[in-house]
Amino acid sequence: MDAISRIEQALTAAVDRAEFPGCPPRLIASVRYALFPKGARIRPRLCLAVAGACGDDHPEVSDAAAAALEFLHCASLIHDDLPCFDDAATRRGKPSVHRAFGEPLAVLAGDALIVLAFQTMAWAACKVPERLVGLVSAVGSAVGMPRGIVAGQAWECESGAVDLSAYHQSKTGALFAAATVSGAAAAGAVAEPWRSLGERLGEAYQIADDIRDVVADPQALGKDAGQDALLGRPSAVGELGLAGAIERFETLTEAAVASIPACPGAVDLRKLIVLESNRLLPKGLVHRAA
Amino acid sequence: MDAISRIEQALTAAVDRAEFPGCPPRLIASVRYALFPKGARIRPRLCLAVAGACGDDHPEVSDAAAAALEFLHCASLIHDDLPCFDDAATRRGKPSVHRAFGEPLAVLAGDALIVLAFQTMAWAACKVPERLVGLVSAVGSAVGMPRGIVAGQAWECESGAVDLSAYHQSKTGALFAAATVSGAAAAGAVAEPWRSLGERLGEAYQIADDIRDVVADPQALGKDAGQDALLGRPSAVGELGLAGAIERFETLTEAAVASIPACPGAVDLRKLIVLESNRLLPKGLVHRAA
Repeated sequence: MDAISRIEQALTAAVDRAEFPGCPPRLIASVRYALFPKGARIRPRLCLAVAGACGDDHPEVSDAAAAALEFLHCASLIHDDLPCFDDAATRRGKPSVHRAFGEPLAVLAGDALIVLAFQTMAWAACKVPERLVGLVSAVGSAVGMPRGIVAGQAWECESGAVDLSAYHQSKTGALFAAATVSGAAAAGAVAEPWRSLGERLGEAYQIADDIRDVVADPQALGKDAGQDALLGRPSAVGELGLAGAIERFETLTEAAVASIPACPGAVDLRKLIVLESNRLLPKGLVHRAA
Repeated sequence: MDAISRIEQALTAAVDRAEFPGCPPRLIASVRYALFPKGARIRPRLCLAVAGACGDDHPEVSDAAAAALEFLHCASLIHDDLPCFDDAATRRGKPSVHRAFGEPLAVLAGDALIVLAFQTMAWAACKVPERLVGLVSAVGSAVGMPRGIVAGQAWECESGAVDLSAYHQSKTGALFAAATVSGAAAAGAVAEPWRSLGERLGEAYQIADDIRDVVADPQALGKDAGQDALLGRPSAVGELGLAGAIERFETLTEAAVASIPACPGAVDLRKLIVLESNRLLPKGLVHRAA
């Protein structure tokens, strides 16, 4: 089965399991609304790619880790969109969860997805429980304190000077790092050497996002372009210029590829990452911009 | 060490671990504010009591489970107090988290505490990883879908008829059940037979709360009395009358004591539960009311 089918199946199975009789219907509806139809599933695909490169001897555990990452990513989008943060009207081309279901259910759907992430990993790990410790630690640190997504978002509530690199590392890099680390952990490999790959890809992803905000046409982008400059947001393009940002993106993806630890599937994984990087920032787009 | 010292130490150690350099200071301050100074710690004490009755061969795991229950309890209080739910001005005798730190940090502190609950159990279980599967499952089902605290709160967002017993079971009973089940799981005992004890104590706790709302003097209660009737909330006293509610409380605590599975510390555990029940609903209060 290809990665995207595995991911959709794992997400669906976990939500089906949660939708046992007795679950409030609008809660489960809001959770499904946030998860489906599918987003790019970049983090879970990265997780499965690393698990595959490490042998993937317990695919049910890798699938669970991949699903957990997507649950946490969606939870953070729901809570970030709340009126007390971005008050976003739309997300993935439709009304945000709080606009569609109200603010109380948006808070609860995010909470439920955080819990579901950990439940899903526990359900899958019963045959290899020794892997669960590493998985919960890796995924937990990507989302909690001191430097996970929640901490990243909380930097927006600090009045003093904010370390922008720590902010981006927490808000974007942490879950990418968890994707590679948990992919390796799910396959029973030594996991920490995989962190660097995830961190570099996370930073590259952030930079590609900044570049697309400047050069992409809004229709292809699926949202308004030029928002970073308009809102005075920190951006790699603002900081390094367009050419500098593109160079930084290329340096990072090369460093990412070079950082892949020795493993049975290293060759294929390298190819996949080059392919995905080109998808993230198409050469055509870069040439047009340059 | 006595139970309450173990609990405070476990809570403090977990939060200290999360407060690694790089954690936003106001986030960690809001988390500490929600957790300390101590509440009654009823759920973690129940967890440790059951772990003790089952031998408590890995006290670090029991402590972690106990701390996780309190983290989740506090997370649910913070989110329930938000303006989009109860908009509570005070909690545990001081301003609620969103009044003290603002709404964004209240959302994030709740999220961070949910994650910290699972991280804490993973950190502690490295020597007995096979116990982590049961712990994450037990604790996860108490807080998530279909019938945990989050689901209980979500019943308030349903427009159709709500099953009140399912609502109370989710909002209060689920975490009590998790306290007994996770206490047994932490000590390596067969855990499911302990569920009934937790469920009965959870229901008894809810009824005692309803009774105190009617008969206690407000100062001893620490909040306004008579709120259930005033707000038209469902209440055991409203449903069964005062005498009926007291009788139901006594039947439940007796059934709870009778349900304790065979274990090394059964005799002491029975005594403790009788003692705690009397503390929950003092005989003097009951006589004065009758």
